Amino acid sequence: MSEPFDAVDVIMAKRDRGPLSDAQIDWVVDAYTRGVVADEQMSALAMAILLNGMSREEISRWTAAMIASGERMDFSSLSRPTADKHSTGGVGDKITLPLAPLVAVFGVAVPQLSGRGLGHTGGTLDKLESIPGWRADLSTQEMLAQLEDVGAVVCAAGSGLAPADRKLYALRDVTGTVEAIPLIASSIMSKKIAEGTGALVLDVKVGSGAFMKTQESASELARTMVDLGTDAGVTTVALLTNMETPLGLTAGNALEVRESLEVLAGGGPPDVVELTVALAAEMLAAAGRSGIDPAPALADGRAMDVWRRMVTAQGGDPDAPLPTARHTHDVLAPADGVLTRLDAYAVGVAVWRLGAGRARKEDPVQAGAGVELHAKPGATVRGGERLLTLHTDTPERFDRALEALEGSFTIAPEGSRPGLLPLVIDRVG
Amino acid sequence: MSEPFDAVDVIMAKRDRGPLSDAQIDWVVDAYTRGVVADEQMSALAMAILLNGMSREEISRWTAAMIASGERMDFSSLSRPTADKHSTGGVGDKITLPLAPLVAVFGVAVPQLSGRGLGHTGGTLDKLESIPGWRADLSTQEMLAQLEDVGAVVCAAGSGLAPADRKLYALRDVTGTVEAIPLIASSIMSKKIAEGTGALVLDVKVGSGAFMKTQESASELARTMVDLGTDAGVTTVALLTNMETPLGLTAGNALEVRESLEVLAGGGPPDVVELTVALAAEMLAAAGRSGIDPAPALADGRAMDVWRRMVTAQGGDPDAPLPTARHTHDVLAPADGVLTRLDAYAVGVAVWRLGAGRARKEDPVQAGAGVELHAKPGATVRGGERLLTLHTDTPERFDRALEALEGSFTIAPEGSRPGLLPLVIDRVG
Repeated sequence: MSEPFDAVDVIMAKRDRGPLSDAQIDWVVDAYTRGVVADEQMSALAMAILLNGMSREEISRWTAAMIASGERMDFSSLSRPTADKHSTGGVGDKITLPLAPLVAVFGVAVPQLSGRGLGHTGGTLDKLESIPGWRADLSTQEMLAQLEDVGAVVCAAGSGLAPADRKLYALRDVTGTVEAIPLIASSIMSKKIAEGTGALVLDVKVGSGAFMKTQESASELARTMVDLGTDAGVTTVALLTNMETPLGLTAGNALEVRESLEVLAGGGPPDVVELTVALAAEMLAAAGRSGIDPAPALADGRAMDVWRRMVTAQGGDPDAPLPTARHTHDVLAPADGVLTRLDAYAVGVAVWRLGAGRARKEDPVQAGAGVELHAKPGATVRGGERLLTLHTDTPERFDRALEALEGSFTIAPEGSRPGLLPLVIDRVG
Repeated sequence: MSEPFDAVDVIMAKRDRGPLSDAQIDWVVDAYTRGVVADEQMSALAMAILLNGMSREEISRWTAAMIASGERMDFSSLSRPTADKHSTGGVGDKITLPLAPLVAVFGVAVPQLSGRGLGHTGGTLDKLESIPGWRADLSTQEMLAQLEDVGAVVCAAGSGLAPADRKLYALRDVTGTVEAIPLIASSIMSKKIAEGTGALVLDVKVGSGAFMKTQESASELARTMVDLGTDAGVTTVALLTNMETPLGLTAGNALEVRESLEVLAGGGPPDVVELTVALAAEMLAAAGRSGIDPAPALADGRAMDVWRRMVTAQGGDPDAPLPTARHTHDVLAPADGVLTRLDAYAVGVAVWRLGAGRARKEDPVQAGAGVELHAKPGATVRGGERLLTLHTDTPERFDRALEALEGSFTIAPEGSRPGLLPLVIDRVG
């Protein structure tokens, strides 16, 4: 009994709406990582936090305790400032792919530690792994060398960062305690702060395809994370962005790489370009390079040059053909009119069911699977023309994907003007 | 995947303040008993129940599901009606000992399944086990025979009654989820309803020595339990009784048996007599024998006769000398005046530390240990006279017991009139 606290007392303090002391937070996170606080105790505490909340001070301390559970990276040896971006996850969100090289063009290094997809949102590493030869696992040394040399790296987060968070996240997933803003914010920010970035731009998605369904909850999450970053000395800014409909015209691994290449070649869907440029400008400003318009570097090929070097440095062949799915199925527009709604969540689930996503961490993903959009909300469509094309290697998956898409879009009479939210809804800085 | 529900969905329903359906409750209690719902899931659900509450219908169904997890006893073969009493636990609460034989005098059988003490409140079985030879473990057959023959039995609850409750109680104990009125009420009532009694009188303690510290929470618990009993077809009544100060003049196993014998011999402390008679009258009325004044059966020896037969039937020798502790220590009144407060919780902790109680289920208890009171609140005391006597076999325990008693009593100037609550504060029926 050399433990300074009893888990039950800590749980009861939060249950009874009291604040947890710094010492209680430090202890409970550390003791949980060590296995002294049991899963059933931590889940009761997580539910009490979900229902009773935590103050800014408590969340900040909780985040610091999760960071202290593991190692921290250090980019201070680099010759240039660093800036990272984190998205809370959406459908068709391939922004990291054009964004990281674009920011690197302007002398700001981008150390992007990413994850794999789970559920209806895709993972950046899954997308990049559709490039033949590309590998996600780099040593810290390789990562630092690439940041100095190329200026951008997208790779897998090492298991040494915030191990308390990994354990806690797995627990929250099975105990109905994922949706607690203090726990979501500290989970994201503990990893980003431990990663050692100097500046951070958060893309907080809001809408049907996002984790946060309402602007109110997305704003609260954004504000909480910006406060956490600021308290930890990381220049942090958040954009609230629209996730009612998928980003761009593709969702799926290789499909999204292809679209990213279009953007890096100066083309691509306007919404992907707009968000890439907006986030790049924020990252540059947060890293001390204000007033730069990054858009020209997409048009003139400088971002594409960095992309090619970035892919090559990680073993990928930027000229190799991307995988394509063996089977496709078209969904046709049932009538003439204006597409007023195309639901991001439904498309995300369809993409997942087509084989692009995974239900369990160890599942494989299909590189070519996904959904291609032929129209976006606001567009005029003609009955009988293609609205969506579904891609998969395993055609028995079409039925369940089509089920997910039932009722996923609305076609209003011609002349209708859908009341669509802007892509960038708000900024929290 | 033949399970009809997912634990996370059930947790999230209660987390989001929705009611649980009958089918969800039946499933989650059963699946938890089977080990399909994990401890960390049930503790998150218990915390959500504690913070968000349950409706009368939900609590009733939850209780029924816990009853259904095990066996039910059946007293319908007996020639007389049955009535049981349950106390939520207090300090010096030996009422069951004189009460069970007193009620049996009037032709109502008392099947009292009891527990052992844990923490600062004593257990009825621990008290009776200080009688040489007495044994708590009876088969169902022995219990039924004794109820028919003697009319009263106090014995250990079999492990077959409400096993879901036993598992859940152990979990709540380590996860800060004990203090949830729906869970307390369903825990108590599932065992009492499964036991099969026809009528039930609840003694809900309120005050420093009780689990419920406020009248408001005690009333809510009483009302919840009375509703549960009524919904299950058991005639149920509750008395709210005062537990600011210990009951009677003794707390400790053999000390309380001795005091109970005084009551059964027509004497004893007035508060013990008053509560015994009040609860007996309620039990008789609930079993259909209204209008009986049980008090004379204490004075004329009829209750004592049943007691002797009850003890003998379970192997005890009613004439054997009771164990006494080897060491005593007196606490003296520091001044002349009126004792206005003698704190039940402090006395309970002292009794526990003297060796009468246990910290873990497997700990042994001392039969002779405890605290003797020489004055009760309202009494005039003289400086230098004994206020308390501490009893133990292990004198090294005196220090920590005296620590518990620091600040536990108040002596006001002579002529002061303390504002004391009545013993029976309220009745819920």
